[in-house]
Amino acid sequence: MKKSDLFPLVFVDVALFSIVSDCLRVLLVRRAQDPNRRGWALPGGILKPEMDADLKSAATRVLRTKISVEVPHLEEVRTFSGVDRDPRGWSISVLFCALLPYDKVNALVKDKVEALEWAAADNPGHRMAFDHGEQLAVALHMLRDRVRVTRPVLPLHLMPERFTLTALQKTCEAILGKEIDKAAFRRRLKDSTDLVELPGELQRGSHAPAQLFRARDGFEFAV
Amino acid sequence: MKKSDLFPLVFVDVALFSIVSDCLRVLLVRRAQDPNRRGWALPGGILKPEMDADLKSAATRVLRTKISVEVPHLEEVRTFSGVDRDPRGWSISVLFCALLPYDKVNALVKDKVEALEWAAADNPGHRMAFDHGEQLAVALHMLRDRVRVTRPVLPLHLMPERFTLTALQKTCEAILGKEIDKAAFRRRLKDSTDLVELPGELQRGSHAPAQLFRARDGFEFAV
Repeated sequence: MKKSDLFPLVFVDVALFSIVSDCLRVLLVRRAQDPNRRGWALPGGILKPEMDADLKSAATRVLRTKISVEVPHLEEVRTFSGVDRDPRGWSISVLFCALLPYDKVNALVKDKVEALEWAAADNPGHRMAFDHGEQLAVALHMLRDRVRVTRPVLPLHLMPERFTLTALQKTCEAILGKEIDKAAFRRRLKDSTDLVELPGELQRGSHAPAQLFRARDGFEFAV
Repeated sequence: MKKSDLFPLVFVDVALFSIVSDCLRVLLVRRAQDPNRRGWALPGGILKPEMDADLKSAATRVLRTKISVEVPHLEEVRTFSGVDRDPRGWSISVLFCALLPYDKVNALVKDKVEALEWAAADNPGHRMAFDHGEQLAVALHMLRDRVRVTRPVLPLHLMPERFTLTALQKTCEAILGKEIDKAAFRRRLKDSTDLVELPGELQRGSHAPAQLFRARDGFEFAV
């Protein structure tokens, strides 16, 4: 009897989203080890109770050590579990997701990973290892639902320090994969306490000058 | 070194909500065993990989065996984890929640439970075991958020087979703990495919006759 017959294996996986060339992308890693060696997967790893304070800390550690990424906020999506999802035994994966500007990901490939790729979130173009295809679909659904229904300011995590509302709308559109109505978008932002107007600071260019904003201090990913 | 230094203990806990006398209540159990013997807790138990197909099945089994309750739908809330939350070692609890008509809970107290109580969800009146006070607060927040923002039809799980929109609104109000605007509520229901009007079936009583509805076949808890 394997230990995993009595104690489940516990993994953390992360769907790390960004916008690259106006398109929503997800970071995939190519596995350097069995099982599923050379398969494409979401970055993840096993929980180490002796090192990790909790599951979120485990996900933070895994991103740091495997792909040299520091993620300021991680949001739990849900668990995936059962006897069949990993050949090593009865397992649980706790899926997290995060939004991160593209240029914050160091290209340095580290431990246990052969390659990194920013794949199209809707259609990554690879057969995914384990149940990571389903994990990606569930994380993507949650992200879009949040942006569409409850949190139009969520993409603040992807914005530069100062930005216009038009730029924020473009980022929301890239996440949703479709255009949104400008008037309705502005109405939804009107009462947001997460946006801070920068008095007298305007973006000037080919168009009429546009008001600049910043995210409020301590803006959080979670609802 | 305990096994739980290498393999975390994995539990499932369930916040089971119902409406009793127009008030949102949560089912608590009084523990018959250490740790926290005689403490009040959400019903829950340990994952048994040799018996459970996945975490949701574990939660279903625990409700069935410990408190004789069959729950048709369980929704995952989130995980709670770390070295300090349970004296038995590094542990994970996966929290689920469900809505269930009050009279579906058999009063029979079973294995490892001393007593059952439908406590006020907002203020259960007991010091809760482990981190179950926090778990209850998180589940309650999710439930109210769903009903308020994305799923006004969620309380269909608490309704009789045929009901009026006024009765559905009263149930939503009991969940939210406050009155809601009738016109806005009806607008939100207008395009719902989860409600089926029953042609010619009216509720008659002291008020004007009111149209009766049922939930569509296969209505699901989840978003």
